Amino acid sequence: MNIFIANTAGFCFGVKRAIDLAFREAKEGAGRVATLGPIIHNPQVIEQLKQIGVTTIDKLENPTSEIPLQGLDGLDTLIIRTHGIPLPLSEKLKSTGIKLIDATCPFVKKAQQYAKLLSEEGYKVLILGDKDHPEVQGILSYAGSEAEVVEPGKDLSPVTGRVGVVVQTTQPIEALRRLLNQIVETAKEIKVYNTICNSTAQRLLETEELARKVDIMYVIGGKNSANTKQLARLCDSIGVETYHIETAEEIVPVQLQGKENVGITAGASTPEWIIKEVYNAITTLSGEGPEVSDK
Amino acid sequence: MNIFIANTAGFCFGVKRAIDLAFREAKEGAGRVATLGPIIHNPQVIEQLKQIGVTTIDKLENPTSEIPLQGLDGLDTLIIRTHGIPLPLSEKLKSTGIKLIDATCPFVKKAQQYAKLLSEEGYKVLILGDKDHPEVQGILSYAGSEAEVVEPGKDLSPVTGRVGVVVQTTQPIEALRRLLNQIVETAKEIKVYNTICNSTAQRLLETEELARKVDIMYVIGGKNSANTKQLARLCDSIGVETYHIETAEEIVPVQLQGKENVGITAGASTPEWIIKEVYNAITTLSGEGPEVSDK
Repeated sequence: MNIFIANTAGFCFGVKRAIDLAFREAKEGAGRVATLGPIIHNPQVIEQLKQIGVTTIDKLENPTSEIPLQGLDGLDTLIIRTHGIPLPLSEKLKSTGIKLIDATCPFVKKAQQYAKLLSEEGYKVLILGDKDHPEVQGILSYAGSEAEVVEPGKDLSPVTGRVGVVVQTTQPIEALRRLLNQIVETAKEIKVYNTICNSTAQRLLETEELARKVDIMYVIGGKNSANTKQLARLCDSIGVETYHIETAEEIVPVQLQGKENVGITAGASTPEWIIKEVYNAITTLSGEGPEVSDK
Repeated sequence: MNIFIANTAGFCFGVKRAIDLAFREAKEGAGRVATLGPIIHNPQVIEQLKQIGVTTIDKLENPTSEIPLQGLDGLDTLIIRTHGIPLPLSEKLKSTGIKLIDATCPFVKKAQQYAKLLSEEGYKVLILGDKDHPEVQGILSYAGSEAEVVEPGKDLSPVTGRVGVVVQTTQPIEALRRLLNQIVETAKEIKVYNTICNSTAQRLLETEELARKVDIMYVIGGKNSANTKQLARLCDSIGVETYHIETAEEIVPVQLQGKENVGITAGASTPEWIIKEVYNAITTLSGEGPEVSDK
């Protein structure tokens, strides 16, 4: 039996980097370590971190500089998660003397910096994204007082003059196309930084390729995870036998009977060790030794 | 009978300005005056200018600085038409000592300057327009060595990095939308100057409005003029009785019988005096005194 694991399965670059940073901090014995908000929406990972002493400060999720910084007493190290945080909060945290580990995704950081640059160059900045998402709130804080968040698909009052555009990193390219279609007629000048990260698009692409060449697909990720459900729907639509699972325990031996090629992919919040557990379970249940192949 | 003349009938701002400049130069007795290429594609206007001593130098139509400047001997004043000319030619002409009257449309001039700015800022400049049009050739000369002309609707090889966009002033907005749709996925940064002049769009809009409230429409302009034919087709499609005429002589009295409201519009190369002749002819043929109304 051949087992293929998609290269793009699981964590994207930014999430992997943030979690590595969190584990490294704890291991180095930096005293009391916490993340500002859950570092990832995966309970197993949060639990693992808790076991090595990294707690989560929830009070500060979506905070502004106006909110008193509760929960920081006795803290030695604070980890900023991939979404990033608003600029005023960042400045306030720096003044506390607590060691800050900035695990903001480098792509999100770029979007923040481009928003700042556009604002400094005198553009009215539009941020395409979900208004309430912490990433967007962070970018907004860099984008100047005239900035506006444009939610995908929502109608927009006509914008004139000089308009600058940055995009929440997880938006699909179609949302940016639609926004440009809307503003190009009335704006005299538009400067767009395409800050979309294509890891989601690449994961879908690779999953589609993989699903076409195997007899069965395991898609790993939270049953409520939007991006995992999207992966499972895609495999289903190709006609391959597809199972959306959260852990290895859900694999039933009969599923693997008579299968020659097995594909594994995973949503963005699935850690590598869960993917490995699934791989090992398949190997064991099929009664064969490991014969893993890269795609 | 009410006669309505569209405000946007005939010359656009840039063409009107150029022709005014040409007539003024000749009247001031500036010696031998010529235009570099026909100042407008309307034989009557060219003929009128000829009668007051303004000739046309055709040899230099689409010239580059490599072409010897023939036909300038004995010339006192040279008029640059609305399309503008390439930068190297402009510099060469300045060195001849001939008085230059720059009637380049201010909107075209802006497109040239934006192309230069984008190139200086390190963008790869794309000019959306018709490759062989003198306006586009002129803009291209300002856009740096990496610049490229993109013809509307044509496929484009993927562009990456930092891309700057300017547009031939007479392109429809849809062409710009299509171009942005194409490049937004691969370019990391796009800076767009929407240099489209909306006089054509406004003329169509006003003509449509007018056609809906009159009993008969006269559309004045060359039978081969693309923009005039477009106006006539638009009126026709609304269901109003429409006549596409070149001069007042084509109006037949029976057309006006029983008509209460008459509309007049005209293509971009139709001079005002031809519009006035048509207006006067309608007044005379209808047997009424003038009762002109603004739209």
